[in-house]
Amino acid sequence: ILFCILQGANEEKPRKRKLDKTRQDTLYFDSYSDNIESLRGKVVLDVGAGTGLLSVFCVQAGARKVYAVEACSIAEQAVKVVRQNSMEGRIDVIRGAVETVELPEAVDAIVSEWMGYALLHESMLNSVLYARDKWLKSGGLILPSRAELYIAPVADPVVEDRLQFWDTVKDQYGVDMTCMSDFARKCIMNSDIRVNSVTVEDVLAHPARFAELDLSSVSVEELRSVKGPFRCTSFGAAAVNAFCVYFTVTFPCADKPIVLSTSPFKAETHWKQALLYLDAPVDVVQDTVVAGTVSMYPSEDSIRHILWNNVVTCPYLHCSTDRCQ
Amino acid sequence: ILFCILQGANEEKPRKRKLDKTRQDTLYFDSYSDNIESLRGKVVLDVGAGTGLLSVFCVQAGARKVYAVEACSIAEQAVKVVRQNSMEGRIDVIRGAVETVELPEAVDAIVSEWMGYALLHESMLNSVLYARDKWLKSGGLILPSRAELYIAPVADPVVEDRLQFWDTVKDQYGVDMTCMSDFARKCIMNSDIRVNSVTVEDVLAHPARFAELDLSSVSVEELRSVKGPFRCTSFGAAAVNAFCVYFTVTFPCADKPIVLSTSPFKAETHWKQALLYLDAPVDVVQDTVVAGTVSMYPSEDSIRHILWNNVVTCPYLHCSTDRCQ
Repeated sequence: ILFCILQGANEEKPRKRKLDKTRQDTLYFDSYSDNIESLRGKVVLDVGAGTGLLSVFCVQAGARKVYAVEACSIAEQAVKVVRQNSMEGRIDVIRGAVETVELPEAVDAIVSEWMGYALLHESMLNSVLYARDKWLKSGGLILPSRAELYIAPVADPVVEDRLQFWDTVKDQYGVDMTCMSDFARKCIMNSDIRVNSVTVEDVLAHPARFAELDLSSVSVEELRSVKGPFRCTSFGAAAVNAFCVYFTVTFPCADKPIVLSTSPFKAETHWKQALLYLDAPVDVVQDTVVAGTVSMYPSEDSIRHILWNNVVTCPYLHCSTDRCQ
Repeated sequence: ILFCILQGANEEKPRKRKLDKTRQDTLYFDSYSDNIESLRGKVVLDVGAGTGLLSVFCVQAGARKVYAVEACSIAEQAVKVVRQNSMEGRIDVIRGAVETVELPEAVDAIVSEWMGYALLHESMLNSVLYARDKWLKSGGLILPSRAELYIAPVADPVVEDRLQFWDTVKDQYGVDMTCMSDFARKCIMNSDIRVNSVTVEDVLAHPARFAELDLSSVSVEELRSVKGPFRCTSFGAAAVNAFCVYFTVTFPCADKPIVLSTSPFKAETHWKQALLYLDAPVDVVQDTVVAGTVSMYPSEDSIRHILWNNVVTCPYLHCSTDRCQ
């Protein structure tokens, strides 16, 4: 997460990606520059400051003081960035976990780029909430202020390609490898959360929102089970073999909120989309209702099977089986 | 390595790759079918048999008996594949490390798909050589029988893009992040071996062969230091910021040897190419001689700097510094 805001610099092949990095950075930057009035003169805490860029943005947006808390050694780079931008007096880089560091004062606002894959997968949100409860003044600002989770049924051609491959070996080499298909499918089901770009053509229905987090009030306890119902209506005939989950986060602004969306219908971001595979594809036709309940929770268990029974289990951190027949 | 021979089935995005999987599989298959005379009636040991496909190829090539030794649980799939192809009498799947399993007899030939990235990076070659010394009859066949290592200077645009990114932040956001470039370069230098596809346009000279391994005679001891001189003449004016290393393996055949090449000038394979980055780019002009010595060795140390002083250090397993001024 450290580098997400500047993730364009950390990707393998910038030349070959479709990623509109500028858009994402700009969104983040706009959210702070457009919050000039709300940050002006304020004392700000940057949770997981990384290279310190967000802290610099806050000063540019008028913050009086920024505490840039960073647990990793990248904090040393943040110190250099602060110095290079002559902001030593305005930004204090504090190396340590936000749960244990001491600040000289309570803060008016908390900023952070805490989002993980599928929002909550290895996210820093718990640390942000801890910091909120400990250091944010009553009625203080938290940026972003809201997060929303969406789901949509998809037909991921990659999986079927991978499984079909085993059927082609016989024709090609005269070796019957069809028995590998089941094993390969189980490998896909049991693998860690899969993050990939879902192309628009593979999305089979308008995505449905199933959860919303108000970051000024949500508790760590509530994050242990983020769930909600969803209902989608399929565009046309297709085989659903997965669900994709993505998120938006919102920054309140004077005129209208700024929304950073990781939807497959928007420009690609670092977060792409999370994919949850079904045990087996399910055929739908036009206007088939695909509805159910999504449940996201942390789990030690890395096994996750999704059965087609109106229930989608989408755990974060790790994933666990919900064999509901 | 297990799945390399069928790696097309294990890649993330088969649709988006240029990989000519068929070519690679066919090479492997041809090497065994073209060795029909050499494998006919023979007893074969398949080291690291994986799904058992190579063992089946050997039976198709006329092998009398194949011992398919596999340490991982994928051995269970090999058992199914053997059964599905009605070869229970010809292939014995033996689960265990080749260093510890017992075979009922010595073998006439050893086959294996043991190659790692840059040939030796996490390769199974040591196990193959152990098996050779323990189970191969004197004068027995080992397939592939030879491996060669090549090197070429390259201009990898990805690295410079990544580093230049930090210079662009000031223009874009008014935040001076130029101090991050050094840090970012060090991150690239210190990262694990980088495997990526080098495009033909980025190769700055004809590759040079710097080492050759005769698999019938090379020892584990010799693998502790695989090195050799190289000499390239640059095509034209460019900035060298890395070297790429790749390999070929050869199967002896009645008419002419079959060569599996991982050269950037050939169709892409699973192995792509290994990249070794220089501490800083070096300008060359047409006919500049780029020469030196490559040294590959296993190391616990994950730090690897390559200085431009006619010496390229290309360790395998892990990489270590060779600061030769």
